Amino acid sequence: MLPKGTFPSKVFLNGEIVDSNAAKISVFDRGFLFGDGIYEVMVQLENGIFYKNAHLQRMQDNLKKIGIAHDIAELDSQIPTLLHACQLEDSPCLIYLQVTRGVAARKHAFPSEAKPTAMMYALPYSLPHINQKNMKVVSMEDKRWHQCDIKSISLLGNVLANQSAMVQNTDEAILVRDGFITEGSHTNIFFVGKEKVYTHPANHHILDGITRRVVIDLCQELQIPLFEKAIKIDDIPSMDEAFLTGTTTQIASVGQIDNHVFYQSNTIGKTTKKLQEAFAKLKELNADTLAL
Amino acid sequence: MLPKGTFPSKVFLNGEIVDSNAAKISVFDRGFLFGDGIYEVMVQLENGIFYKNAHLQRMQDNLKKIGIAHDIAELDSQIPTLLHACQLEDSPCLIYLQVTRGVAARKHAFPSEAKPTAMMYALPYSLPHINQKNMKVVSMEDKRWHQCDIKSISLLGNVLANQSAMVQNTDEAILVRDGFITEGSHTNIFFVGKEKVYTHPANHHILDGITRRVVIDLCQELQIPLFEKAIKIDDIPSMDEAFLTGTTTQIASVGQIDNHVFYQSNTIGKTTKKLQEAFAKLKELNADTLAL
Repeated sequence: MLPKGTFPSKVFLNGEIVDSNAAKISVFDRGFLFGDGIYEVMVQLENGIFYKNAHLQRMQDNLKKIGIAHDIAELDSQIPTLLHACQLEDSPCLIYLQVTRGVAARKHAFPSEAKPTAMMYALPYSLPHINQKNMKVVSMEDKRWHQCDIKSISLLGNVLANQSAMVQNTDEAILVRDGFITEGSHTNIFFVGKEKVYTHPANHHILDGITRRVVIDLCQELQIPLFEKAIKIDDIPSMDEAFLTGTTTQIASVGQIDNHVFYQSNTIGKTTKKLQEAFAKLKELNADTLAL
Repeated sequence: MLPKGTFPSKVFLNGEIVDSNAAKISVFDRGFLFGDGIYEVMVQLENGIFYKNAHLQRMQDNLKKIGIAHDIAELDSQIPTLLHACQLEDSPCLIYLQVTRGVAARKHAFPSEAKPTAMMYALPYSLPHINQKNMKVVSMEDKRWHQCDIKSISLLGNVLANQSAMVQNTDEAILVRDGFITEGSHTNIFFVGKEKVYTHPANHHILDGITRRVVIDLCQELQIPLFEKAIKIDDIPSMDEAFLTGTTTQIASVGQIDNHVFYQSNTIGKTTKKLQEAFAKLKELNADTLAL
C-alpha cells in the first residue's frame, strides 16, 4: 500500500491503467538502477493541455538525446484514457510522464534488447490565475552535471539543492556555475535591469523550460528587449526585478535572493507584472491554438 | 516476467526474500522518480566477502551524505539469508545492494516520512586470479556532477560515457575534467611514470573506490612511491603504465588510451604486474582479517 500523501488514483503503466497501489516496476528497471530515463510535467487547464505539443516534442527530443527508442505518440494517445479513468477529463490537473530504458540485467552500457518502460499519471491541480507569491530564494553552487538540457530522472543534484533551499526556509535554490546564475532546482530564472530582460542561454547548463520559451515570446510581443545572457551572482544588486518560471510555478516574482531584497512581499515589479498578465491571458485561449 | 539476461533467482526487498520476477517497487519510489539512492557492489570469494566492512561503511557514509536515515546493519545481517536462498552460501558471487529514500508523492525536497527502500541481490560471479586483459580505453569530457564522491544511483552521466566507450569498441571511458583525468565510468585510474604511481585525489570529482584504497595501501607496503595527484590528459605520453581498478575489474592493465599505445596486448607493465600479484595474494587471505 502507498503511504499517506497526494497520490493519483490510477497510473498508466506500459499500456495498462492500473490502481496506484498496484503500479509497480521491476527492481531491474534501469530507471531504478541508473536514473536512466526522461520525464515531463504538463498541466490541463479549462481549455486543454497547455502547450502539450511543446512538452511532448521536448520529451521525444530528450529520449533521442539519450538513445531511448520510444515513440511518444503512444503516451499522447493514452492521455484521454488516463484522464477518464481518473475522472479528470474536464478538470484542471497535472500530468506527469516518464519513460525509462526498461528492464535489463545491470550493466552500465545500453542493453541490446530492452523494452522502454512508459508511465504516466494525473493529479487534480489548479493553477492560480496569476502566481501572487513573492519568492524568497537562496543561491548555491550548481553542482549538477553538464547536460542539464536533458530532462532526465537522474535528479539527485536537483533534489539536494531543493532540499537545502527548504531547510533554509526559502522557496527555491538558485544555482551558480562559475559565478553565473544558471537556473533554479526546478525552475528557470529571469532578471530585469533597466527595462531589459535577461535569462541564461538555452545551452547544456540549463533546461530550456516551456514557460521560459513562452516568456521569451511574450517579451517579443510586448516589445520588451530580451537577452539570452547569463547574469553574474555579483550583478544581482544592479538588477531591478527577478522572476522564476516553470510549468507549475508559471511566472513567480522573486522578492529576495540571499540578502538582497528586491521588494517586499506585497509588491511585484512592473515588468514581471506585465508578463504575468500576458501569460494569464494565454491560459484563456484554446490550448490547441498555442504553439512555440 | 523478466526479459532474457543474467538475473538473480531471488531478491532481498524490504525485509523479504522474493522471486526475481516478483521483485517490484512502486513507481512512486524516489529511486525511480529522482535517482535518489545509494548503491554498492561487492564480491564473495572463497574466503569470505572481500572488504565487506569497507563497502558497508562507505554505503552508510554515503546514505548519511544525502540524508537517508537507514542503518545498513539490517542489510548486512540479511546477506547470509539471501545467499542461502540463492544457494550461493559457499560460492563466489557478486552482491549488489541499493537503498533509496523510499516511496512518497513526487516533490523534489525530502519527504517528511518516507521509509527507505532496501534491496539486494546476489549473482554467481568468479573473479579471475589476475585480470589478464589489457584494456583499450577512450578519453572524453567528464560531464558528470560535482559530487562524484557519492555513489548514487543518479548514474545517467556514467551510463552515457560507458555507452560511448562501447560504441567505439573500447573497454572503458576515461573522463577528463578541465584537462585532468578524473576516473573511468565505473573504475578508478592509476598511472605509473618513472616508477612513481599517480591517481586522482579522493575529492568530489571521483569515487573513492575500495580497490583504489587497497592499491594505495599495497604501494605503501611494496615501497612504491604513490602520489594522489591528478594527471593531465596531455601528460599521458610521458607515463610508462596505466591501470584501472574496481571491485570486478580488480587491477586491469591499460594498453592504450585513445591513440597512445602503452604496450601490446600480451605485455603488462612491471609495476602494474607487481601490484596485480600482491592484490591476488590478498584474495587468498581470510576476508575477515582484511581492513582498510
